[in-house]
Amino acid sequence: MKLLEERILKDGKILPGDVLKVDSFLNHQIDVSLINECGKEWYRLFENEGVTKILTIEASGIGIACITALNFGVPVVYAKKSKSHNIAGDCYSSKVVSYTHGHTYDVLVYKKYIEKGDRVLIIDDFLANGSALKALIAITERAGATVVGAGIAVEKVFQEGGNDIRARGYRIESLAKISSISAENGIKFCD
Amino acid sequence: MKLLEERILKDGKILPGDVLKVDSFLNHQIDVSLINECGKEWYRLFENEGVTKILTIEASGIGIACITALNFGVPVVYAKKSKSHNIAGDCYSSKVVSYTHGHTYDVLVYKKYIEKGDRVLIIDDFLANGSALKALIAITERAGATVVGAGIAVEKVFQEGGNDIRARGYRIESLAKISSISAENGIKFCD
Repeated sequence: MKLLEERILKDGKILPGDVLKVDSFLNHQIDVSLINECGKEWYRLFENEGVTKILTIEASGIGIACITALNFGVPVVYAKKSKSHNIAGDCYSSKVVSYTHGHTYDVLVYKKYIEKGDRVLIIDDFLANGSALKALIAITERAGATVVGAGIAVEKVFQEGGNDIRARGYRIESLAKISSISAENGIKFCD
Repeated sequence: MKLLEERILKDGKILPGDVLKVDSFLNHQIDVSLINECGKEWYRLFENEGVTKILTIEASGIGIACITALNFGVPVVYAKKSKSHNIAGDCYSSKVVSYTHGHTYDVLVYKKYIEKGDRVLIIDDFLANGSALKALIAITERAGATVVGAGIAVEKVFQEGGNDIRARGYRIESLAKISSISAENGIKFCD
């Protein structure tokens, strides 16, 4: 989506280690008008999929998911981060490895909020190694629900997550697909 | 707001210790249509206040704040939880005491996202002891910005936070004001 790519070029910051920081409009301060345009685009892409729930993960996915859900007219469920293992029977849990923060944590979803028959669209701000998206897919399928696909704001295509998950047959619609980031050459998008 | 009170009566659960659980529509699963009605109501209440930013706190405030911000046409900033003290010069931080979880944590906002001249509306899902709201007020005022008020979904009026903060001169608009919760008598709202 041109609007998002242009905003990344204008306001994204490249930090040491070729990390992209977009916290002026996506995940600390949130430009809700821009996100609403993203939500409209995902609605255009997935409107015939009979979506019944939007699933995301705290914290940075929540705002994007809620604004997108308004376009679909369905509820949001967000997976909660937990440091303790919850082995109680009332939750689905799955492990996420954060390469950015160098640790592993569990995410939880109460069973009653994703059910058999649900058609789930997963929404998140970033896709890089794919660990969070894989956890949300695992939770959805453990519930007997169907993953209709994933809407991602920014995909780092040079990391393996997106292609790995696509190869398993899932549809991923990323609105900005970054092919490379470096302090020398800046941010490049896929064609 | 009748719509929110009715929903709390219908779907709120009272847990041991007279804790109110509203995670089927407010803070795990989110009914975005209901939240959009809350957002419209806060817009009606604060539309003449010249709001330039909506400030909230992760994670459960983010969805409500983003949907409300669409009504105002302004950005959201969410304070991030941090277990480490950030004493770098680029953040405002403030302490929050969580009585529910029995611990204290810092919340951080990058200085560049709340600035002198901003007119800040604080949005959050719950107000009980008021610790989170006081932290967000402190951050806003340290930035030299103005707190125009707070929009709260559910206030537990029988705890001291709301009245304490109102007594300091702040406007708080809570859409459901609970006067008592008990397993025996259920949930009672203020008139």
